[in-house]
Amino acid sequence: MEHYKYQCFDCKKYYSSTKIEENRIYLCPRCGEAKRNMPLKGVLKVRYDKEFIKENLSRDNLLNMTIGEFWTYPYLWPLEINGDQLVSIPSNYLEKIALYNHPLVQGKIEGRELYFFDETRNPTLSFKDRATNLVVLKALQLGINEITVASTGNAGSSLAGICSKLRLKSHVFVPKNIPEGKLIQIRSYGANTYIVDGDYDMAFDLCQEVSRKKGWYNRNTAYNPLTIEGKKSVAYDIFISFKGELPEYIFVQVGDGVIISGLYKGLNELLELGWIEKLPKLIGIQSAGSNALIRYLDTGKFEYQHALTIADGICSGAPRNLYFAAEAVRESLGFGIEVTDDEILEAQKTIANRIGILVEPAAAAAYAGFKKKESNSEFFRSAKILIILTGNGLKDISSLKSWSPKSDVKSYDEWKDILK
Amino acid sequence: MEHYKYQCFDCKKYYSSTKIEENRIYLCPRCGEAKRNMPLKGVLKVRYDKEFIKENLSRDNLLNMTIGEFWTYPYLWPLEINGDQLVSIPSNYLEKIALYNHPLVQGKIEGRELYFFDETRNPTLSFKDRATNLVVLKALQLGINEITVASTGNAGSSLAGICSKLRLKSHVFVPKNIPEGKLIQIRSYGANTYIVDGDYDMAFDLCQEVSRKKGWYNRNTAYNPLTIEGKKSVAYDIFISFKGELPEYIFVQVGDGVIISGLYKGLNELLELGWIEKLPKLIGIQSAGSNALIRYLDTGKFEYQHALTIADGICSGAPRNLYFAAEAVRESLGFGIEVTDDEILEAQKTIANRIGILVEPAAAAAYAGFKKKESNSEFFRSAKILIILTGNGLKDISSLKSWSPKSDVKSYDEWKDILK
Repeated sequence: MEHYKYQCFDCKKYYSSTKIEENRIYLCPRCGEAKRNMPLKGVLKVRYDKEFIKENLSRDNLLNMTIGEFWTYPYLWPLEINGDQLVSIPSNYLEKIALYNHPLVQGKIEGRELYFFDETRNPTLSFKDRATNLVVLKALQLGINEITVASTGNAGSSLAGICSKLRLKSHVFVPKNIPEGKLIQIRSYGANTYIVDGDYDMAFDLCQEVSRKKGWYNRNTAYNPLTIEGKKSVAYDIFISFKGELPEYIFVQVGDGVIISGLYKGLNELLELGWIEKLPKLIGIQSAGSNALIRYLDTGKFEYQHALTIADGICSGAPRNLYFAAEAVRESLGFGIEVTDDEILEAQKTIANRIGILVEPAAAAAYAGFKKKESNSEFFRSAKILIILTGNGLKDISSLKSWSPKSDVKSYDEWKDILK
Repeated sequence: MEHYKYQCFDCKKYYSSTKIEENRIYLCPRCGEAKRNMPLKGVLKVRYDKEFIKENLSRDNLLNMTIGEFWTYPYLWPLEINGDQLVSIPSNYLEKIALYNHPLVQGKIEGRELYFFDETRNPTLSFKDRATNLVVLKALQLGINEITVASTGNAGSSLAGICSKLRLKSHVFVPKNIPEGKLIQIRSYGANTYIVDGDYDMAFDLCQEVSRKKGWYNRNTAYNPLTIEGKKSVAYDIFISFKGELPEYIFVQVGDGVIISGLYKGLNELLELGWIEKLPKLIGIQSAGSNALIRYLDTGKFEYQHALTIADGICSGAPRNLYFAAEAVRESLGFGIEVTDDEILEAQKTIANRIGILVEPAAAAAYAGFKKKESNSEFFRSAKILIILTGNGLKDISSLKSWSPKSDVKSYDEWKDILK
């Protein structure tokens, strides 16, 4: 008996999990399509037997669980379970992939109370660990030991770091403009690293082609449905953190569109299970130099444009999960916001100085979007707002350097004189 | 009624907490001495009314507590409490300083099972947050809002980051050879940063002099007794993590000697409370270029030597807490080990590749020490060993760069050809 199936996002056809997993199928066998510089077609969604979940888990059980340990509620995942145990996963593997479990931080900026979800202290210091964790658990169950990914940096360091902990082999394709900190992180964990003379979209395509030939398990974001599924864990963690009383708005950055899709999918499950009454509005933030979702929401059309922004983590000309991301925004009654690189750097500074969290530019974009909206809206004044902070600032110190105050080297006596 | 007093490490005289705290006294009023390039004399230790602790807390209560949240056991700290609440500390301040609470990681290297205590995911990504947390809580209770520290980098970024979260002002004195990542971390949080044309020992002395004049609260390590006290929290967290069954050996790096002193003090309290039967042996690791403790253990004499090592976090010619650190090693029946910079870098690589944790060189020193000892000792084969990993590798990527594999930028077609 299966407690989950796969369903195509586009044609809606269902597939048994055995068929998909044993044959290492990623996209819908009927309509799936992965083309260069194009969003994916036929992305697969995991669909659960809701009765099975409800038999094993109640709203109250979930609310009493620990934040950040998504394996502690195994019924919610496309993994083989025996009773309440994961098959083929040694129990000490779970401690090694532990997410940070005090993510919810309240803070005041210019008199305004806000909530932040701090993903900067996950195992490899970014949100991507949510997806990697699930992919890696699946790989262990399938007996696979080589995994690949294309990445602007965080998905790659996440795969490299978690594979190193679990003694799996990782292959990471990155664009040449990857921030130095992220590249060194990937290499130091011992991944095989392939730097492509091109952008992320090119690295993605190359990774697709090579992994097919080599037979590596593919963690490419959206292409592997477990990436969306792993990221849905954030919805459950938000639910637990807020003790079931969700915020009205959630601000999140959009690159490939997988974080917002996963968040939406998880929230939707909570809705279908009857554990929340309505969806929070999801606000997708993009950089002006990488705004395919914003344009798609406006026009209903995708058009490839080469992306360029200081926020490397959301630099994607062809968001692979564009259509799912657009559904997340629309169905939740949210909207998109575009911010400039300068607004992103300003937001990065505000978060460091007022909330005390160093974030990378992509993460700061979410706050920049809030800031922009707030300044021309009375409406937001009283709403309960959550801003998701996706990656640690130390992964890319050049952006911090661009605004952090300079200071001179001075002798003992000079300082004594100045500070007298 | 006070539940704690201060006692001089050297002359053993007791002082009331009111006298010490209201007058902002740091060292023993009778024999205390802070001299340039010298270990401190008259370091104060916090001493508790053990009966008071036992009335409020049992061994079993403690074992059922959450790891990493040291404020959840307020009876163990020199803070003003009312019932089981901290006076003058808003409850949402506590979530902001939350330590990482899955620190215990088991791992196998070359067939050998080891335990690691992962402090790299604390709020500012190092062990120093344990000390800063307690200092800052005390500052809040005393109504102080400017705090200063001298630092090789981690204590400074810790103070800067946590002050920023809690809206306190921080002043950080650093030596000019501080790794770039740490300097940018400090500046980005918004601290006032003073780079001294000299080494850490000089920065320490300058900080002492300026803070006296300015009346800033001083977080200098060992000088402020709450730094040792905050760091003792690691002993309680180790106790909880190991469910009361402590390891036989704990390996920890030694710079200023405060981590090992705090660890020892906490373990000693557990012993005095009757909650453990004996102390684990504490093994202090130093770099060959900064080995004042090793020399002191050998000769019984302190002699200042300018320190130089790639492990900036333990680069200290005059360990301020030398005598306490030496007692920790001796009384626990431990010993010191000296390692070279090359051994440190090799250890950094092993931990990244085999355990999947990126650590800075100072943290890697602890494992390098274990490795060195293991290679010439049958004895260690079966012992239960804990290695404390004190700081995140992304704070200093230059050391990671020195050994992480290089890789070339290649075109799409070149990679396709190579990976066919």
